[in-house]
Amino acid sequence: MEDFMKGKFISFEGPDGAGKSTVMKKVLEQLEPELKPQYLVTREPGGSKIAEKIRKLILDPENDQMSARTEALLYASSRSQLIQEVIKPALNSGILVFSDRFVDSSLAYQGAGRELGISEVAAINRFATEGISPDLTLFFDIAPEKGLARIKKVRPDDEDRLEREKLAFHQRVYAGYQEIIKRYPERIVVIKADRPVEEVTEEAIATIKNRLPEIF
Amino acid sequence: MEDFMKGKFISFEGPDGAGKSTVMKKVLEQLEPELKPQYLVTREPGGSKIAEKIRKLILDPENDQMSARTEALLYASSRSQLIQEVIKPALNSGILVFSDRFVDSSLAYQGAGRELGISEVAAINRFATEGISPDLTLFFDIAPEKGLARIKKVRPDDEDRLEREKLAFHQRVYAGYQEIIKRYPERIVVIKADRPVEEVTEEAIATIKNRLPEIF
Repeated sequence: MEDFMKGKFISFEGPDGAGKSTVMKKVLEQLEPELKPQYLVTREPGGSKIAEKIRKLILDPENDQMSARTEALLYASSRSQLIQEVIKPALNSGILVFSDRFVDSSLAYQGAGRELGISEVAAINRFATEGISPDLTLFFDIAPEKGLARIKKVRPDDEDRLEREKLAFHQRVYAGYQEIIKRYPERIVVIKADRPVEEVTEEAIATIKNRLPEIF
Repeated sequence: MEDFMKGKFISFEGPDGAGKSTVMKKVLEQLEPELKPQYLVTREPGGSKIAEKIRKLILDPENDQMSARTEALLYASSRSQLIQEVIKPALNSGILVFSDRFVDSSLAYQGAGRELGISEVAAINRFATEGISPDLTLFFDIAPEKGLARIKKVRPDDEDRLEREKLAFHQRVYAGYQEIIKRYPERIVVIKADRPVEEVTEEAIATIKNRLPEIF
């Protein structure tokens, strides 16, 4: 299959509380009538039967003895399965793929947040993804303090393991994202997320139209 | 802690049907009265609560859509957890560790058997193990055809996923082990396993006494 027939791949990234899942939903609602290819929405970790089982293992508070390296390897294994079962076949069929988080999340959360090293975590993820990478990544930029405050307000009962982490962890994650943005300037577009969701959505849509005109 | 106070680490490796688990049990029974340090026996994949959950995921026949890369990453994550929770603390306390399979099994089964590449699988395992490696590895050598024939005879109902693989897979695993033995000649000692279990046990014990006199 010729490369120009391959589907495009867009990932949404950002710290917890940046509102990326909400914006992704709104972007899809508004773009849907205009998109030429079929599209598929997936999320990480999870997105396939086996990947969801791995996701459950990672997020189960009962597994609080899990080491940072084990966690990083489990994220990579969940991703590997999602690539194999869902993303690769979709892209090969010309389907447009949207993913809520992808490799950059592991680089930021495990590489920087858990201090395993961005390059080290990138290496295990190259093994997991077989080199498949988004064509475009939207980074929803919000200071970690503000992101966490938003979560507390909107989801006060959210006891998801990652979000119970201390502020210092989220600051390392944010610094990690800044480093990743420097490493991949062609792929990642930064969108300020500390403003009304309609404005954020509008800029996300404009960015997609500008960077991937072939899907419209 | 000084290095000479660190515990020693012995792994038992070999193709399916080499009888290594049986020999390990017999070796331990016979050596127990003579061993100076406390010792601990573990198995892979598994050996800790979280690692056992990962083991279950890997071996569940329901997960037959699991990709080779996912499987390799899950083995590495199980190993990483075992290292963190069990092996590292034990070695740091001067405890002698015996493991039924370790990294070499991943190199042989995933790297060679599933054709992911020995070096590629070694790289993700260096991340998982933080460089912890056995001081001595006993490789129980049996031709794959003979090993599989033994399993059929002794465990006719064994439907473990790996053992349902075709002979060609087990031949690649065996060739992989030969390559690994060439790479680490100081660490790995080959013991012919196609003979009475008493003889194999005797040679295993003699090898341990010869290579690690300090534990007696």
